[in-house]
Amino acid sequence: MYICHTVAEIRKFVREARTRGQTVGFVPTMGYLHEGHLELMRQAKERCDVVVISIFVNPTQFGPQEDFARYPRDLERDVQMAGEVGVDAVFNPSVEEIYPAGYCTYVEVERITERLCGLSRPGHFRGVTTVVAKLFNIVAPDQAFFGQKDAQQVLVIKRMAADLNMDLEVVTVPTVREADGLAMSSRNVYLDAVQRQAALVLSRSLQAAAEAVAAGQRDVSTIRQLVVDMIKAEPLAEIDYVEIYSHPDLEPVVTLNGPALLALAVKIGRTRLIDNIILGVRDHVSNNV
Amino acid sequence: MYICHTVAEIRKFVREARTRGQTVGFVPTMGYLHEGHLELMRQAKERCDVVVISIFVNPTQFGPQEDFARYPRDLERDVQMAGEVGVDAVFNPSVEEIYPAGYCTYVEVERITERLCGLSRPGHFRGVTTVVAKLFNIVAPDQAFFGQKDAQQVLVIKRMAADLNMDLEVVTVPTVREADGLAMSSRNVYLDAVQRQAALVLSRSLQAAAEAVAAGQRDVSTIRQLVVDMIKAEPLAEIDYVEIYSHPDLEPVVTLNGPALLALAVKIGRTRLIDNIILGVRDHVSNNV
Repeated sequence: MYICHTVAEIRKFVREARTRGQTVGFVPTMGYLHEGHLELMRQAKERCDVVVISIFVNPTQFGPQEDFARYPRDLERDVQMAGEVGVDAVFNPSVEEIYPAGYCTYVEVERITERLCGLSRPGHFRGVTTVVAKLFNIVAPDQAFFGQKDAQQVLVIKRMAADLNMDLEVVTVPTVREADGLAMSSRNVYLDAVQRQAALVLSRSLQAAAEAVAAGQRDVSTIRQLVVDMIKAEPLAEIDYVEIYSHPDLEPVVTLNGPALLALAVKIGRTRLIDNIILGVRDHVSNNV
Repeated sequence: MYICHTVAEIRKFVREARTRGQTVGFVPTMGYLHEGHLELMRQAKERCDVVVISIFVNPTQFGPQEDFARYPRDLERDVQMAGEVGVDAVFNPSVEEIYPAGYCTYVEVERITERLCGLSRPGHFRGVTTVVAKLFNIVAPDQAFFGQKDAQQVLVIKRMAADLNMDLEVVTVPTVREADGLAMSSRNVYLDAVQRQAALVLSRSLQAAAEAVAAGQRDVSTIRQLVVDMIKAEPLAEIDYVEIYSHPDLEPVVTLNGPALLALAVKIGRTRLIDNIILGVRDHVSNNV
């Protein structure tokens, strides 16, 4: 596996693959890989000849009070795991390589970033879209892979790619969960054993909502309240938001009559976790909780 | 010459050129071509195998009180002129092709857009960088050509391309002028004969500044005042700005000790004209006024 740290090096690697007529799949990550990331890489490997991943903890998507400094990092472990699922190249740039002195350009998606995590984390999506635009330009993949765990992020990146005429396909991969339902996240490492148990309220409440919908419930505020009540019953949990919007446009919705995103952000101790489910009303089947 | 109106068509055209191993030069324009545009195309033709131009009057770079609706348009004449200098393809999209319903992504360069035309025309550069980012992604050229007449625009686009790791070269082409010194501009068509004569004060004042520098003047406020006084002596002229900043960083400068951009925007009647010169102190030679 090829490991490099500069834009010039990864560009050369990708160009050589293209010269051989190979297609390129790309998985951008912040490292500290878990099964969710590996699933993205497996999907990329299945669909593309060559798989490139980036490992870059992007400072511009963290707020000043957030966990940029203490975000978990372990390059050696990441490289090992990526190698095991057949990744061909790891691009691991420094902050200075991505944001050199004098850097001053930002990509911003409006409207759908003004809800959910966009409200809780001002500037977060501007950091995400900026770094992803850069990485897309650097790697120039045919397909890029993102997890449904970050549901709003996927929608924002798809919007950006379409709006800016980026010549690639954004592929969404279902959330990967622990056996007990907890969505995989690099931030799960922050949880102690008691918090880890409390964190199950996220997926359990989503599941309860899906069951209510399957049983015929269509009133959005009733469904939302069911989730809120379940989370409030967990003493270690503090709600950041619990919201239901139409999917994929993220417009307010009163009565379910099409796919809707039930998304939540909950703090367990100092750790902010997110999870979501798409509530479908046609076939009464919800996705992978 | 190939003329098309959709993203899919121009992409196909460029891909076929690439398959033949040809390099691609790109000249984005708002049409109503003049000798300045043609010079960009000739330069592109000289450096690249295939030359693509776009003709698109971009609504997002006009303010609500500006001249979007009355901006001059003449596609037939433009196509004729482009053909004569050897352009291979004209991409002439509709507004809906570039900004379909639901469009909400913008590219923004900070700092260097906060001066000069960025101050006079809020949102102007955001519109420019957004549409140019899109056009770069659509056409995927090796080189893109811009005129020094829009000095700040060139700096902003170079900054964007570098910051976002766009894989192309931005080439600056010197300002083309009428025999009497007036910088070529599609907006010159707005001027009547008397205004046309008055408009010469722009290039004359820049020339006077260059001569003062050649004679040893280094004090920026003295140089600026010389230009201001000359323009104020022209009754039909109304100054929007006359500024001198370091080039290319556009930082304030008190004493000339390196290349500096003397840029001005002046209204002649309802018509806002811009012009500029780079004041060099090393060789006492200024550029093309």
